[in-house]
Amino acid sequence: MLNYKIEIQYDGTKYNGWQKQGNTLNTIQGKFEAILNKMTDKNIEIHGSGRTDAGVHAVCQIANFKCDVNMSTDEIKTYINHYLPTDIAVIDISVVPDRFHSRLNAKEKIYRYSITNVRKPDVFKRKFTYYVEEKLQLDKMIEASKYFIGEHDFKAFCSNKHFKKSTVRKIYSIDITENNGEIEILYRGNGFLYNMVRIMTGTLIEVGLGKREASDMKNIIEQKQRELAGYTAPPQGLFLEKVIY
Amino acid sequence: MLNYKIEIQYDGTKYNGWQKQGNTLNTIQGKFEAILNKMTDKNIEIHGSGRTDAGVHAVCQIANFKCDVNMSTDEIKTYINHYLPTDIAVIDISVVPDRFHSRLNAKEKIYRYSITNVRKPDVFKRKFTYYVEEKLQLDKMIEASKYFIGEHDFKAFCSNKHFKKSTVRKIYSIDITENNGEIEILYRGNGFLYNMVRIMTGTLIEVGLGKREASDMKNIIEQKQRELAGYTAPPQGLFLEKVIY
Repeated sequence: MLNYKIEIQYDGTKYNGWQKQGNTLNTIQGKFEAILNKMTDKNIEIHGSGRTDAGVHAVCQIANFKCDVNMSTDEIKTYINHYLPTDIAVIDISVVPDRFHSRLNAKEKIYRYSITNVRKPDVFKRKFTYYVEEKLQLDKMIEASKYFIGEHDFKAFCSNKHFKKSTVRKIYSIDITENNGEIEILYRGNGFLYNMVRIMTGTLIEVGLGKREASDMKNIIEQKQRELAGYTAPPQGLFLEKVIY
Repeated sequence: MLNYKIEIQYDGTKYNGWQKQGNTLNTIQGKFEAILNKMTDKNIEIHGSGRTDAGVHAVCQIANFKCDVNMSTDEIKTYINHYLPTDIAVIDISVVPDRFHSRLNAKEKIYRYSITNVRKPDVFKRKFTYYVEEKLQLDKMIEASKYFIGEHDFKAFCSNKHFKKSTVRKIYSIDITENNGEIEILYRGNGFLYNMVRIMTGTLIEVGLGKREASDMKNIIEQKQRELAGYTAPPQGLFLEKVIY
């Protein structure tokens, strides 16, 4: 059995996210397993570095799977790409040590959230950005984002109320830039909870709109209550950019 | 009656091109006229600067229409955008002199053709570029493109065999650039015949693949026979970028 590391890109618009759920095939994981099962005539499980939500995109998601098949990595890549729909693609496949696990070994994840502000998004990007009509105050958003940096319990920024494991995560940096009405928020951290990037983004947007003060972030983190944080920004602006091992 | 100039952007993927045909509504022109008729309760005709083919996109198409309505240009823009599908957008509307005609007054048109070469296109761009797997020789394509510059009879590069008007057009420049496997061909000219940009692109691709010599272009232009030119490159890589008056 060889352990394969696979780099995947997807336009998440039509999918119910990465993780397979029950018998629905409409997930990225489900699409891959159906193809791998056909290729090997066995039940193969593919492990993603993390679950992206319904509608979220990936510039480079990492996954791994183990199988025993008489094909080169190039042949496997060609086979999988042949059966994948056009909104999912395998960028690269390589053989990695048996102990490699895409989720457990991930050291850092980079997410990008795209907002188009004031002017409407270009029609070509309409599925890949979130349109906020009212002017956002970037300086306030940048000020607020500083409270998230470092190691904190991000329970207030997690949609799953019954999450039993630790909700402590470390955020290395949040970079907010603007170019011709397109605002990008780049989040780097050692891991992110369920909906965490989208809730942080929704909260930063509320700060940018003047509905909250930047300094409120301290209290939200300390109180650990989801209700105190902002809304969950919609999925179409979110991209998993990179996973670092 | 005021004459309105309108800047339009569209993702042409789902449409049968600009021009309305019979009773099909699935054209950009048809979508606009249905909305303008509803807005004014009259039959309004909208004139585009040129017909884009089925599947071709526009970063900025220009059109004009005349009507008498008690609304500001901002209100008209908002009204039309409200009823347009998300893959078409009005960027700007302005009142222009009565004699302005988007097609007859156009001095220059700029089209861009996007090819992704060797590596597969990014899934996010898959509907906006043409994938050519085999390596293209850019220097040969650039050499061939020089034969098109200037005023020529481009009958060989027109799909409409029964076109009765002049097939003479002037091409100002063709710029071919490459960036990380993405080849862009920027065409500037005083006008383009039916399918002309796509046939020139298909012919340049055949040169890039070594199937033709760059110097063959001279003979193709002189012979004026469609059969001598290359294939019609597919529509999804083509964008009407700008119309200059």
